[in-house]
Amino acid sequence: MADSAAKRETDSDEPDDLSLKVKRPKSDNENGRGLGAKDSEPKNILSGFSTSKVLSDSAREKNIFVHGKLADQEAVIILEKTPIREDTLAELLSGSTLKLELKNDIYSTYRLQAPSHLNEIKTTVVCPATEKHVKKYQRQESSLVEETGEDYQSITLPYIQKQSFSVQWVFNILEKKAEADRIVYEDPDPKVGFVLLPDFKWDQKQVDDLYLIAIVHPREIKSLRDLTSEHLPLLQNIFVKGKEAILQRYNLPASKLRVYLHYQPSYYHLHVHFTKLGYEAPGCGVERAHLLADVIQNIQSDSQYYKTRTLYFPLRADDGLLSKFKEAGRL
Amino acid sequence: MADSAAKRETDSDEPDDLSLKVKRPKSDNENGRGLGAKDSEPKNILSGFSTSKVLSDSAREKNIFVHGKLADQEAVIILEKTPIREDTLAELLSGSTLKLELKNDIYSTYRLQAPSHLNEIKTTVVCPATEKHVKKYQRQESSLVEETGEDYQSITLPYIQKQSFSVQWVFNILEKKAEADRIVYEDPDPKVGFVLLPDFKWDQKQVDDLYLIAIVHPREIKSLRDLTSEHLPLLQNIFVKGKEAILQRYNLPASKLRVYLHYQPSYYHLHVHFTKLGYEAPGCGVERAHLLADVIQNIQSDSQYYKTRTLYFPLRADDGLLSKFKEAGRL
Repeated sequence: MADSAAKRETDSDEPDDLSLKVKRPKSDNENGRGLGAKDSEPKNILSGFSTSKVLSDSAREKNIFVHGKLADQEAVIILEKTPIREDTLAELLSGSTLKLELKNDIYSTYRLQAPSHLNEIKTTVVCPATEKHVKKYQRQESSLVEETGEDYQSITLPYIQKQSFSVQWVFNILEKKAEADRIVYEDPDPKVGFVLLPDFKWDQKQVDDLYLIAIVHPREIKSLRDLTSEHLPLLQNIFVKGKEAILQRYNLPASKLRVYLHYQPSYYHLHVHFTKLGYEAPGCGVERAHLLADVIQNIQSDSQYYKTRTLYFPLRADDGLLSKFKEAGRL
Repeated sequence: MADSAAKRETDSDEPDDLSLKVKRPKSDNENGRGLGAKDSEPKNILSGFSTSKVLSDSAREKNIFVHGKLADQEAVIILEKTPIREDTLAELLSGSTLKLELKNDIYSTYRLQAPSHLNEIKTTVVCPATEKHVKKYQRQESSLVEETGEDYQSITLPYIQKQSFSVQWVFNILEKKAEADRIVYEDPDPKVGFVLLPDFKWDQKQVDDLYLIAIVHPREIKSLRDLTSEHLPLLQNIFVKGKEAILQRYNLPASKLRVYLHYQPSYYHLHVHFTKLGYEAPGCGVERAHLLADVIQNIQSDSQYYKTRTLYFPLRADDGLLSKFKEAGRL
């Protein structure tokens, strides 16, 4: 399980995908259980924090990742503003101070200063933090790589084989040795079958951010690059039965789904992503995702399409494969 | 200009793309100029607001759009938490109250209650608001549409022609009658030339969210669907010279760029999007974006690729084209 979580974690390019990395904080009504004394303690341990560097931040998501020292220990602090809650909206509007910024016709803008208990900032402290933590939260620039069919054979394939990334956790799922209770649907056929289960990024509490993964039963297909017309029955089976299973279980029709493969994938055993249309899932951008419907069409008109085509994908600065492309003078 | 802004506005699927809809609030040091009296006024006009409906919200972006009444007038209120600023970080950490939530090994999480002036909420009021405002801010579900080459001829093309969407604002740019001072680069050739200029969504203050548009000089190409091998010189010219111009002007190499077309586009005069890799620009998802490099490759191997291929794209529930697909029994 831990292995499985760690592998899937790399599926996200986001440094801020915290939900996978630390346990979820307890909800309000659980809070204080066993921690009551500390909860009301006035001391603010962060007042002694000295910042070394902002590792990353997002103006869109209102968060910031900071490296620094806390009482002589290395620490990473993560701050993220909390969502605006409908149930406290009336209190927020009536109990705040408004500062007018601008008025133009029917539009006006203000800075609203809210009571602090209605406007909390979620704070996560990692202390002592290791080099690895700092690196994990450090924003990584990505570069777009251009991989011809030949590049795949001479650079990418040898790299994948040498790394021999373990997909034991995938086999455990396929053999029901792990996560059997999470399976949403299975077609057990060894040639065209697959297992459909929720991605770890999805908490399954609402369909707004629905995210499932179909993992194929055949074991020899590493990625999009291996697909030819012989795999059409497998791909069509996943497309049809995956959509059916999601309609049955979650009442979400096919027209609300984005069904796609990643290239590069985060693990080299063929799998297909099902996410809700309108949910901006990490990795659904045009530079990494390939619609399953397009993949099927392309292979139908040219069985060798994905063997011969130049494919484009982003690699993070610390990705070993990027170094290989650089060494080969392809970047 | 107003027309141009309005057209481009539809480029975004996000109801919360506020920067296009109201004038930007003044920065802190400009604030209060001429409004000083109001700025210090203690009265909170929003305390009398009564909520009718939450139109949309985003837990990720920490905003909420609310329809209601303000002193008997229809109003829309938009609240959005402000980004966490590096320059006030020390004050924020030392001046706040911390409530411990959870401690597990090296990880701990807190709720941080900050001084309200360090943790403001940007508030926009539209009052009186019309039906149209309410509709604009209402979250719209999208559906994925499957358009065959025949569907394009029988459903989409007649719809586009009947609507006769004006692209006069595009011609104004190409003829230097508008926005001439915003042009970053131009190749004036009537067959393979184009104008490159910043998208309205980009404030040009940082390259992190760089967003430029190349608008082609030829006037008869509506979209991806019209492209054949005869357009390869045009597409290659945009790809090469657009990237060169961005390197020259913004010092951003081609490997940091995502270059793509939209289908459906928001206006039917061929244009190409250049955005920074890593910036999740609205509309860069696999369901709407097509990498220019892929488009070129596909046309090279089959001149009729985009005339004959089934294309998939999302349409909002209130899109007239969606009704046409429904009427035709294609959804």
